[in-house]
Amino acid sequence: MTFVSRRGLLVGSAALAAATGLPLAGSSRAAAPLAGQQAPGFYRYQVGDFEVSVISDGALRFPVEGFVTNASTDQVKAALTAAFRNTDGLTVPFTPIVVNTGARLILIDTGLGDAAVERTKGTAGQFAANLKAAGLDRGDIDAVVISHFHVDHVDGLLNADNKPAFPNAEIFVPAAELKFWMDDGEMSRAPKGRIEGLFKNTRRIIAALGGKVTPFEAGKDVPGNEIVPGLTAVATPGHSVGHTSFVLSSRGRSVFVQGDVAHIPVLFVENPSWHAAIDQDPVMAEATRRRIYDMLVAEKMLVQGFHYPFPALAHIERTANGYREILVPWSTSI
Amino acid sequence: MTFVSRRGLLVGSAALAAATGLPLAGSSRAAAPLAGQQAPGFYRYQVGDFEVSVISDGALRFPVEGFVTNASTDQVKAALTAAFRNTDGLTVPFTPIVVNTGARLILIDTGLGDAAVERTKGTAGQFAANLKAAGLDRGDIDAVVISHFHVDHVDGLLNADNKPAFPNAEIFVPAAELKFWMDDGEMSRAPKGRIEGLFKNTRRIIAALGGKVTPFEAGKDVPGNEIVPGLTAVATPGHSVGHTSFVLSSRGRSVFVQGDVAHIPVLFVENPSWHAAIDQDPVMAEATRRRIYDMLVAEKMLVQGFHYPFPALAHIERTANGYREILVPWSTSI
Repeated sequence: MTFVSRRGLLVGSAALAAATGLPLAGSSRAAAPLAGQQAPGFYRYQVGDFEVSVISDGALRFPVEGFVTNASTDQVKAALTAAFRNTDGLTVPFTPIVVNTGARLILIDTGLGDAAVERTKGTAGQFAANLKAAGLDRGDIDAVVISHFHVDHVDGLLNADNKPAFPNAEIFVPAAELKFWMDDGEMSRAPKGRIEGLFKNTRRIIAALGGKVTPFEAGKDVPGNEIVPGLTAVATPGHSVGHTSFVLSSRGRSVFVQGDVAHIPVLFVENPSWHAAIDQDPVMAEATRRRIYDMLVAEKMLVQGFHYPFPALAHIERTANGYREILVPWSTSI
Repeated sequence: MTFVSRRGLLVGSAALAAATGLPLAGSSRAAAPLAGQQAPGFYRYQVGDFEVSVISDGALRFPVEGFVTNASTDQVKAALTAAFRNTDGLTVPFTPIVVNTGARLILIDTGLGDAAVERTKGTAGQFAANLKAAGLDRGDIDAVVISHFHVDHVDGLLNADNKPAFPNAEIFVPAAELKFWMDDGEMSRAPKGRIEGLFKNTRRIIAALGGKVTPFEAGKDVPGNEIVPGLTAVATPGHSVGHTSFVLSSRGRSVFVQGDVAHIPVLFVENPSWHAAIDQDPVMAEATRRRIYDMLVAEKMLVQGFHYPFPALAHIERTANGYREILVPWSTSI
């Protein structure tokens, strides 16, 4: 048997190199245009009988300076460099999930909402498009469960017209969180940035929802208080006063939906003593983080992290200085 | 301001728990059906002016027993357990890539091909569907570049009718690899499994292609011999006689497209001295692996790994016993 190239001759390396200027077989056709667009940001996995659809809301870049309050910029940049990350800024992804229990479709946290699309030139506010790519519609959502009232977790409760984005959903919010942000006394004592950025934003959203939210109490420990069957709420305060995490359980399988117990993992999972500028009570946040991450290690429990790299599902192992997140390998089928 | 639930009352935790048996706002509608399907398996990133589309071909499960020839099953299972993997079997993903250079669309390795879809009940042979999801067509491919002649890298050269799957593509194959598998003397001396599984398979494919393949010589070191502008071939023998890797380079950015220099990373990156049963010359494969991975560490060079978890793009760091792959975090835009 003889081997011929498509040009009709056997060619060695030198000839090949010289020949690369010649048209290839297909190059008389127009070159395929660059796609210039990322794949849809959704991913599916099962937890017992439940089906989770991880739905990316995109990401934003933040300055490295000041992101961690008790480590120097050099220390933070060294941590990013060790993880092969760019040090010009910090990429913060936003990752809500939709849980189909078979009976209900439950969204946990919302992302930044439609209004963020224009403001961020499309890098955030991708939730609606990715939800659609996943074959789901906001009108299908039966319940939205909120971990805390920071903008990236609640702004998506409203659409671009400031109307409820999930018209058929009951909105469950942590009672302690609602109480705090709606308390005029707390607002009067807060720093200006928190008043403008969070107190007023929470009140704007609650008003646009016509006050129709269902407060829930979180349990002290895992598995927590049940909100709907299979989803329990666990108090994880510090990042905010009423910050809440969730345990999703079906048929003996569980995932800890942490919210922001640890923010960007390459910083705060690997260095649990580091305090994020966005932590309202950083000492309490650290204590919560260590308690929860020790539990995740001891129980070998999966964690779904709102600011973890998409699809944001990981196991946790202990290291000399803290913990390390081991992202679950992408499964090519479910 | 008062807060009302959608049921018209403020409810505490106990009331909520009791109330969860009641219909939620949306639950009079039919529950959303489970999707039961994973997101499309493609992912995009840029290398200088080039756009890479990582296209999953799916995955298969293999028995753990016998996969590593010089470590015990217990040792292999311990490595899997440490990485939070299931030990009932080993999941092996297959991850070809398509490179759009702006002038040409180049596929590197093919996956198992259409014929695998039925045979594997859809868990493998997903390349064509995922390529389509990425907005590309096999007819658009100008060149297919092959790393080596193992079935998961070449069977996709043919479609389900055993005709060329890439009708407009020039097929580039490593000269040393072609020479070996087409050599009747080598075949006569080979063990039966290799004759049936690889020698005959290679000949079947070459024949179906009408012998129309373009052999290329690989360079000894990075960056290697140029096949087409921006893509060079580097000899990485051991896994097979003519096993070849590639360096993709544009505007000072590079990715090392390793093929199977290290198979499943949780085994062979983390334990570079372990030998895979599929390695033809495991001692040479290990030497190649250590040489290449030392280079990846020294150069902080990205590696695209055919059997890495999708999207299979990583940096490499050194550990006490070998190396660790740090998957590049999913970027929600390109």
